Amino acid sequence: MTTAKKKAVVLLSGGLDSATVMAQALDEGYEVYAVSFRYGQRHAIELDCAVEQALKGAKEHKIVEIDLSSFGGSALTTPIEIPKHEHIDELTEEIPITYVPARNTVFLSYALAWAEVLEAFDVFIGVNALDYSGYPDCRPEFITAFEAMANLATVAGVQGNKLSIHAPLINLTKAEIIQRGLALGVDYAKTTSCYDPAPDGRSCGHCDSCLLRLKGFKDAGVQDPRAYTED
Amino acid sequence: MTTAKKKAVVLLSGGLDSATVMAQALDEGYEVYAVSFRYGQRHAIELDCAVEQALKGAKEHKIVEIDLSSFGGSALTTPIEIPKHEHIDELTEEIPITYVPARNTVFLSYALAWAEVLEAFDVFIGVNALDYSGYPDCRPEFITAFEAMANLATVAGVQGNKLSIHAPLINLTKAEIIQRGLALGVDYAKTTSCYDPAPDGRSCGHCDSCLLRLKGFKDAGVQDPRAYTED
Repeated sequence: MTTAKKKAVVLLSGGLDSATVMAQALDEGYEVYAVSFRYGQRHAIELDCAVEQALKGAKEHKIVEIDLSSFGGSALTTPIEIPKHEHIDELTEEIPITYVPARNTVFLSYALAWAEVLEAFDVFIGVNALDYSGYPDCRPEFITAFEAMANLATVAGVQGNKLSIHAPLINLTKAEIIQRGLALGVDYAKTTSCYDPAPDGRSCGHCDSCLLRLKGFKDAGVQDPRAYTED
Repeated sequence: MTTAKKKAVVLLSGGLDSATVMAQALDEGYEVYAVSFRYGQRHAIELDCAVEQALKGAKEHKIVEIDLSSFGGSALTTPIEIPKHEHIDELTEEIPITYVPARNTVFLSYALAWAEVLEAFDVFIGVNALDYSGYPDCRPEFITAFEAMANLATVAGVQGNKLSIHAPLINLTKAEIIQRGLALGVDYAKTTSCYDPAPDGRSCGHCDSCLLRLKGFKDAGVQDPRAYTED
């Protein structure tokens, strides 16, 4: 007798964290339904990476068009300048201008909708509170509150099936995430973290996200396989 | 010295409830930013009504395209038959097939994103628990949980500005909603509730939503000004 695999919806951005989370969900035996978003971001390179990652074992991959740019308010969705730095010490503790309003709330809401249709009770998200760049919706208390809300929002919840939001990277450093992913066989060359990549897909190496990634690889004692414009 | 009006984001569907809620928000002195969604529903008549209602005093009105139909799973977004009844007593207590997975969660998430950009701390939604047709995301406990989550998700929440989700109709009967709306001058001829309207916009009079609306007007002792196919 074979038992059907448990289904999980995985938010897959094409970045380092979500690729690691997908590998972990697969490793835990879930049948993975990956979902990515085209949300007015200025680069499609992220989505190319998401497609590459989904091919590593997802049962299905949906790319959903969403329209956050019409609300304005972020360097990731509207044409304002991405801050660049020479060194990671220049990063501030303030909430950065690359913050997209309510982004993880919107993304998790779509994941919830798909989970409900699939009759999946597990949603995975690659948020990370330690190296989180100051986004409020990357904190553990946000994930806990979203899960509580989700269990009241859905038929599954009403019928007593507990829906879980898994954020397995939330308390890991970037270096620990990378080490976990490498152990699971993640190909980080096919992930991107850059807020401002070159047209050919190479990363800038100087935005907040590149600096955090490069520090993570350095701390992990591993070379980042992603191509950078200064390579 | 004049004081700037407080801003509120109002979810405006083109239905009876949200038209009433917008009128109430205006009456309470808010500057209203109305948001509607094109979410794969089979009829654009709702959105026509939303546009008409927004003209009654909204400062701005955005119609956001969202892609819930790609997940499947509801009679409102995929082509399956809408149940029809002769009489309201035929409505069951079960969650109906017209339920759209996680719909209010997705809608409120977008409202939250816009509120954050506008620096608005008030979001209005016309959910209604008494005549609610069995949707889990129309219950007071869902609204409370969403508000708690929203305050952890956003910069406003982090900075100590309490974001409120107002659901002023939640414990009213349909008749009480209609009486409130009429007192506020809502033109219910320009609202639609029908799940399956005729191409010319007239309501069917036999879907769950029409039956609840018609009973509401009857209980309120008022004629529904909306056109029905059997008129």
